[in-house]
Amino acid sequence: MSALDSYLTGELDEFEPEIREMARYCLGASGKKIRPALVFLSGWKGSAIIDPDLVRAASVVELIHLATLVHDDIMDEADLRRNRQTAARLYGSSAAVLLGDALFAHALNIATQFPTTEVCAAVSESTRRVCAGEIVQTLRRGSVSVNRREYDRIIELKTAELFRVSCYLGAHLSGSPDGYADAVSQFGRHLGVAYQIYDDLVDYFGEEAMIGKTLGTDLASGKVTLPLFVLLERLPKKEADQLRLEIGGQVPSQLDLRLNQMKDLGVFAAVETAVEAELIAARQALVNWIAQPATPHLLGLSDLLTIQVAGLRH
Amino acid sequence: MSALDSYLTGELDEFEPEIREMARYCLGASGKKIRPALVFLSGWKGSAIIDPDLVRAASVVELIHLATLVHDDIMDEADLRRNRQTAARLYGSSAAVLLGDALFAHALNIATQFPTTEVCAAVSESTRRVCAGEIVQTLRRGSVSVNRREYDRIIELKTAELFRVSCYLGAHLSGSPDGYADAVSQFGRHLGVAYQIYDDLVDYFGEEAMIGKTLGTDLASGKVTLPLFVLLERLPKKEADQLRLEIGGQVPSQLDLRLNQMKDLGVFAAVETAVEAELIAARQALVNWIAQPATPHLLGLSDLLTIQVAGLRH
Repeated sequence: MSALDSYLTGELDEFEPEIREMARYCLGASGKKIRPALVFLSGWKGSAIIDPDLVRAASVVELIHLATLVHDDIMDEADLRRNRQTAARLYGSSAAVLLGDALFAHALNIATQFPTTEVCAAVSESTRRVCAGEIVQTLRRGSVSVNRREYDRIIELKTAELFRVSCYLGAHLSGSPDGYADAVSQFGRHLGVAYQIYDDLVDYFGEEAMIGKTLGTDLASGKVTLPLFVLLERLPKKEADQLRLEIGGQVPSQLDLRLNQMKDLGVFAAVETAVEAELIAARQALVNWIAQPATPHLLGLSDLLTIQVAGLRH
Repeated sequence: MSALDSYLTGELDEFEPEIREMARYCLGASGKKIRPALVFLSGWKGSAIIDPDLVRAASVVELIHLATLVHDDIMDEADLRRNRQTAARLYGSSAAVLLGDALFAHALNIATQFPTTEVCAAVSESTRRVCAGEIVQTLRRGSVSVNRREYDRIIELKTAELFRVSCYLGAHLSGSPDGYADAVSQFGRHLGVAYQIYDDLVDYFGEEAMIGKTLGTDLASGKVTLPLFVLLERLPKKEADQLRLEIGGQVPSQLDLRLNQMKDLGVFAAVETAVEAELIAARQALVNWIAQPATPHLLGLSDLLTIQVAGLRH
C-alpha cells in the first residue's frame, strides 16, 4: 500500500501545474483502499516482491474510485467526506465536475502504460457500467416503485463492477491461469454486492462517530436500499404507505421510528442474511482454487466482511 | 461524416440498456463536427475510400467533445444548446454529471480498439489537459486579475489541445510521415487557438438567431475573453474600473454600452488581427508539406475561418 501511495504521489507531477494541488487534495480522500487491496491480493504470489504492474493497476482503480467520489459529493451536496471538506465544497461544484474528469482521464492514461490495450479496455468498460448504475440510482431517487431486481442491478453495476475488475486485473497481470482470473472475477463481483449491502446497512445501523457522517441519509434523500425494502415488506400496509410518503419526500422522514421498526421486525437479520448469501457465493467461486497462493487472502477478506457486518449488531 | 454518424449510432448498443436512450440524446447535440473533420482531413489520401481507423478516431474525439458539452451545460446552468434542451435540463444535473462520465468512458473504450495503446494514451492525456484548462477558466470567473498570458494558456488547453490531437491522429493513423504528423499537430493547435478566439468574438458580435444563444453571456458570467481584454486596455481608467465591477458581478453588466464601446474603439479589428495571426502560424506549419494530399484541405479549413471572422463584421 505504501508503494501505491508513492506511485500516486509521483503521478501528481503529470498533472498540469494549475490543477496539481487540487488533484493532491483529492488523493487525500483515499480511505480504506479496498479496490487496490483486491488487485494486490488477487495477484498475490506469496513473495514479498512488489510487482510494479500490480501497483500501476491498483493506482488506476483507486484513481477511478476517487474520481467517482468527487462526482458523488457534488450530487449529494456533501460538505464532508472522512471529516475533510469535499472537493465540491472547497473548489465549487463546477470545478469539482472538471476535477473528477481530470482524475478519471489520468487514470485511463496510466492504464495505457501497459504493453497492450486490455487494461485500458477493461477499466473503461467498467467505468461506463459504474456510471450506468449510478445514473439509474440517481433517477430513481424518491421513487417508491423501485423493485428488488432493480436494486440488485444498481449495486451490481455501481459497486460490484469495479470490485470485479480489480480482482480480474490482479490475477491476470500476475500471470495466473485464465480460469483463476475468471474465478476471482466472480469472487470480486459477489464480494462487491455484499460490500454494498453492508454499506447500505451501515447507513442505518452504523455509528456516526466511526463512519464520519450522519445516519439515515439514504432515507432522507429518498434512496431505497435493502434495509428499507425489507422494512416496507414487513410493515402493515398503512404504515408502509406512510413510509412511502417519507421516501417520496412528501412528508419529513422519521428516522428514529423507522430504526426502531427495523429492530422490532428483524430487518437487520434479514439484511445480514443477504450479505452472507453473497459472501457464500463469493467463497464458492474459489472452491476449486484453494491451492492458488492468492486464495487464502481473498477468503480472509470475505471473512473480514462477515465480522464487520456482525459488528453492526447492537 | 455519414460513416461517423453510423459508427456512433452503432456504438449505442454498447451502452447499458438503462442509459442507451440518454446517450442517444447526447449524440443529437453533435453540431459542426469540427474535430472529426480534422481527423478526416488530416488523414486525407485523395481517395474516396473510407478508412475505418479514421472513422473510429473521429468517433473518439467527437464523443469526448460531447461529454465535455454535457458537463459544460451543467456548470453554465444552460437550458438550451442548439435549440434543444440540454441533458442537464432534461435529466437533472446529477444524472448529467454521470452521463458525461459514461460518454467519456465509452470514448476511451473505443480508443482501446486500436492495436496499440497510443490512441488511448494520446486522447486521455488531451482530455486531462482540456479539463485543466476549463478548471482554470472556472476558477477565474468574475476575477479581473486574469492576464492575457493566462487567457492564452486557458484556450490552448481547453480548445487547441483536442484540435491538435485530432489532426495528429488523422495523419498518424493514415500512415503519413512522422514529420507530417508533427506539422499537422502544430497546425491544429494554432487553428484551435484561432477558433476559440473567434468563438469568444461571436459571443459579442454574433447574431443570436444564428448561434442559438443570447449574446454577451461571457460578460454576464464574468468570463474575461480577448474582446474584453482589449476593451479594458482601451477604455479610459475610470470607465475600465466601472467595467471591472461588471465583470466581478458587483454591478449589473451593461452589454449594449460595452458593445458600442467595442465598436468605437476598434476592438473587433484588434481581435480579428489576433485570430489571423494564429491562422498565419497554422498555415506556416504546413509550408514545407504542400505536396501532401491532406494539406490543401487543411489550408481550406483555415481560410474558411478567416471568412467566418470577416462575416461577423457588420
